Amino acid sequence: MTATAHEFPSNWGRWGDTDERGAVNLITDEARARGAAEARTGLTVSIARLTTPFPLTGGPMAPTTAATTAVQTAMLFTGVGAPAMAEVMVVTTHHPEVTHLDAMGHWVAGGKVYPGVDAADSSGPTGVRHGAADVYADGILTRGVLLDLAPDGRLAPGHPVTGADLDAAAERAGVEVLPGDALIVRGGWDRVVDGDQPLPGMTSDAVRWMHEHGISVYAGDIGDARPPLPGDVPGALHFLALGRLAIPLIDGADPGALAATCARLGRWTFQLVVAVPRIAGTTGLPVNPIAVF
Amino acid sequence: MTATAHEFPSNWGRWGDTDERGAVNLITDEARARGAAEARTGLTVSIARLTTPFPLTGGPMAPTTAATTAVQTAMLFTGVGAPAMAEVMVVTTHHPEVTHLDAMGHWVAGGKVYPGVDAADSSGPTGVRHGAADVYADGILTRGVLLDLAPDGRLAPGHPVTGADLDAAAERAGVEVLPGDALIVRGGWDRVVDGDQPLPGMTSDAVRWMHEHGISVYAGDIGDARPPLPGDVPGALHFLALGRLAIPLIDGADPGALAATCARLGRWTFQLVVAVPRIAGTTGLPVNPIAVF
Amino acid sequence: MTATAHEFPSNWGRWGDTDERGAVNLITDEARARGAAEARTGLTVSIARLTTPFPLTGGPMAPTTAATTAVQTAMLFTGVGAPAMAEVMVVTTHHPEVTHLDAMGHWVAGGKVYPGVDAADSSGPTGVRHGAADVYADGILTRGVLLDLAPDGRLAPGHPVTGADLDAAAERAGVEVLPGDALIVRGGWDRVVDGDQPLPGMTSDAVRWMHEHGISVYAGDIGDARPPLPGDVPGALHFLALGRLAIPLIDGADPGALAATCARLGRWTFQLVVAVPRIAGTTGLPVNPIAVF
Amino acid sequence: MTATAHEFPSNWGRWGDTDERGAVNLITDEARARGAAEARTGLTVSIARLTTPFPLTGGPMAPTTAATTAVQTAMLFTGVGAPAMAEVMVVTTHHPEVTHLDAMGHWVAGGKVYPGVDAADSSGPTGVRHGAADVYADGILTRGVLLDLAPDGRLAPGHPVTGADLDAAAERAGVEVLPGDALIVRGGWDRVVDGDQPLPGMTSDAVRWMHEHGISVYAGDIGDARPPLPGDVPGALHFLALGRLAIPLIDGADPGALAATCARLGRWTFQLVVAVPRIAGTTGLPVNPIAVF
Repeated sequence: MTATAHEFPSNWGRWGDTDERGAVNLITDEARARGAAEARTGLTVSIARLTTPFPLTGGPMAPTTAATTAVQTAMLFTGVGAPAMAEVMVVTTHHPEVTHLDAMGHWVAGGKVYPGVDAADSSGPTGVRHGAADVYADGILTRGVLLDLAPDGRLAPGHPVTGADLDAAAERAGVEVLPGDALIVRGGWDRVVDGDQPLPGMTSDAVRWMHEHGISVYAGDIGDARPPLPGDVPGALHFLALGRLAIPLIDGADPGALAATCARLGRWTFQLVVAVPRIAGTTGLPVNPIAVF
Repeated sequence: MTATAHEFPSNWGRWGDTDERGAVNLITDEARARGAAEARTGLTVSIARLTTPFPLTGGPMAPTTAATTAVQTAMLFTGVGAPAMAEVMVVTTHHPEVTHLDAMGHWVAGGKVYPGVDAADSSGPTGVRHGAADVYADGILTRGVLLDLAPDGRLAPGHPVTGADLDAAAERAGVEVLPGDALIVRGGWDRVVDGDQPLPGMTSDAVRWMHEHGISVYAGDIGDARPPLPGDVPGALHFLALGRLAIPLIDGADPGALAATCARLGRWTFQLVVAVPRIAGTTGLPVNPIAVF
Repeated sequence: MTATAHEFPSNWGRWGDTDERGAVNLITDEARARGAAEARTGLTVSIARLTTPFPLTGGPMAPTTAATTAVQTAMLFTGVGAPAMAEVMVVTTHHPEVTHLDAMGHWVAGGKVYPGVDAADSSGPTGVRHGAADVYADGILTRGVLLDLAPDGRLAPGHPVTGADLDAAAERAGVEVLPGDALIVRGGWDRVVDGDQPLPGMTSDAVRWMHEHGISVYAGDIGDARPPLPGDVPGALHFLALGRLAIPLIDGADPGALAATCARLGRWTFQLVVAVPRIAGTTGLPVNPIAVF
Repeated sequence: MTATAHEFPSNWGRWGDTDERGAVNLITDEARARGAAEARTGLTVSIARLTTPFPLTGGPMAPTTAATTAVQTAMLFTGVGAPAMAEVMVVTTHHPEVTHLDAMGHWVAGGKVYPGVDAADSSGPTGVRHGAADVYADGILTRGVLLDLAPDGRLAPGHPVTGADLDAAAERAGVEVLPGDALIVRGGWDRVVDGDQPLPGMTSDAVRWMHEHGISVYAGDIGDARPPLPGDVPGALHFLALGRLAIPLIDGADPGALAATCARLGRWTFQLVVAVPRIAGTTGLPVNPIAVF
């Protein structure tokens, strides 16, 4: 494993000094067409967690205790006899309970944002000017590959996921991961529900594997280990995959239903569509990645 | 035109007494496969408006005047020297500046929510229990058809859109609208930018056309006329298409880029993917509908 | 005890058809001067609960579980090297964890708001037009009287507080309650901390006592009993004192420190200042009532 | 005038290394009793601006354009036929449209918060641990003195307020400002309404005057000049009075009604009560300072 971040491969500058899309640039026309060709029956499966809001208000109108979550809602008074009901939502995007995309503007390394913009030029009190999530708002479409690291259950607590683990899963599935593919990883863990146990995590070796295979987007239920893995870069997925390789991360995904579908159909590849909401100037946004079979 | 709502066709009960998905049930396996088959190159086009948040905070840290919009954000203090930037968002879903899906729970007719649930059983102070938007969170996929009502510009102010208008656009495009298709309509209007002019709108005749053609989902830049159309049911799209036909509406869509792509490619049909965020218990949610070619 | 609300005294109309201040009108110049005269050393004691906000955001930046409370805050990013720190607060006023004033616009009885305004004319989706809390924003000043119902501890669980209880406390304190006085009651209970036990509460008999004594404002740690008191009007304090007598209620007060000061000084009367924030158009607002000795 | 901050008097350390109250410590028992003695008739006057919230939500339920303000509210759905109306508020405390108190934790000078605490120890993502506004939640009471700098109108645009200006106003009023007094200044300007003109502001000379007179709290409609005053410390009131003298500032006050009352009564001193809401861990809070005559 690589123990320091500085000798790790970097994509800063690979697509120019002003690029905001990072590894999504690896999705060539060929890769995209390969993704499109996966859509056959049109069956769709969500790779998102179900986020259950809790009430923004408490007291007489609502419970007074709750687990905090990523989304809070308040039902609105729309007027006496109004024909419509509505609500307002407060969303904390970078929360493990909501599946969300980390854009380039989310990460700061040494005072810089990919591919070398001063943090003060990237983000101000009123929002993000460089590397915001809406750069992907036209939709990301490519072939998705599910690598199920523990098809019969789940990874051991604190398991350090390596490139060899990913290779083994690909071999089990009989798939070859190609440049521009989106990598979906299932380890059978839920950071929220299982948060009191040692969480498995991606090693820098696994991130190097992503680099070598040309991964364009990462989604999975395996993130960074907690506690950090001894002898490795702490937070390898965020510090290296996002911070150096500029791979947008879809944090807090839930590939459980996807894995079940893949197993049922005997297909481990699919068309992946990531439809980031078209909201400007944020470091990330909730997403519901859809696998199409 | 039909002048009263009560004699209008209704889908209440068509899919049972407890259904929450409405006309999305019209997307049969055949319709879905027809949609999937439209994906060829994998080119994606968003049908959402770009929503520009304004700062949740004002004063010394931000502008003190602004147009209100659907989304407000505040950049968070993540700690001195923290490697990540983040924000919190306040989202008003049912706002014309953000493209959003109206779920069944949004609409109340005579104290009832589709297909006949008491409003008090559907919505409470803490959220929606029946007909919430997350019933679509596995993804809606079907064939989308763009009917461009004004390919060379935009509809006249206050234009009442009829079934004949839709037929004419379909004929121009050389497409036959089939049961289960999603209908995307472009009229060239923006309710926000053009809000000081008489807005064109759907007539009950057009909604009847949707019923006859088996439309499963509606998205467009044409909603309900403002002011209401004389002699017709006021708010026909919401009162009839959503309220009686149970067609989920994607309000505030922007099909401008889609129309340009369709014209360039000479193709007016495509795979449509609607990936509603997987957030439970709301009357609607922001969406970014993606057309795949 | 009175068992039905309709035969109970009412102040609707007593100060005209358009009044918004209710029983605060009982604070005559004489009553006000009596209050002012209580200020001697200038010692101040708060009658408010301490409300501890929890973070508006969760996830990596904050705890993921918490008791909900009345106030949530998010520290803001004010820019790299900015000289100031700031936050945004989300406040749920009518929550037992924050001491707050209930204004006339908070309460609806038979579709009407005191003193007879249609609810639809009083409140709309954008705020309160009649009976908002800011009608008191010039400050309420009068003599406050503390009646400590349980000087050596606290009331028994579920205790029904009657006029006789109030008389006994006044006799212990050697005070005569006069028209225009603010009544502060201590029973030694905290609705939040003690919420799993039967909460003592005001009976309609006690509310009648308030009427007979000309109470202008009520604050205390005793509210409505939970569960409701058998044989009495449920929610007598809110339904009768606020709803019929138009006495603004300061819910969720904490008179503990006040009681200790009164006992130490041997004084049970003081100048009371209620400084409602000068924010327009709300049904209530957080307040910090101050007793001045 | 003093041109640099470093040679300016400082109160850091004057009340110990862990103090959180700053110049409020100047309110001795004697000063407090002098304040209490000012309460005679009990007439109360607010020194706060009226803040008019705008709707948190927009779209069909509310206006789509508005000036941003310090407070946003949303009326809540409390249930069909519920007896109470309620709302949720979003408050941006440090906003010129709401009268608010700046606590010690609001200001950072050279990475330190008064009286020398590291900024990282004072504030974290979840709130303020040192110098929060609730240190004043027991109430601040002292004698208030109104110095009206422009009794017949308002200061000239961009006027630099000096100690001589304050002396002249005191002489006009026939008052002697004493240690522990609260200083209320009226210049006849409103930073929000008049924001497009050069705003008068406090010079470092005036702040030095505050130091020499032992001012405990400052409130006024004159803050820091905009644009900054040539040749003086920029932002003298915040950088020097708050940052070095540790005088809590009540920003955005409106002493107009107070000045009218003082003139009518021929009295320029009064009992001042500042009842900061009892909410823990914030850099500031909305307040409604009340003058009692």
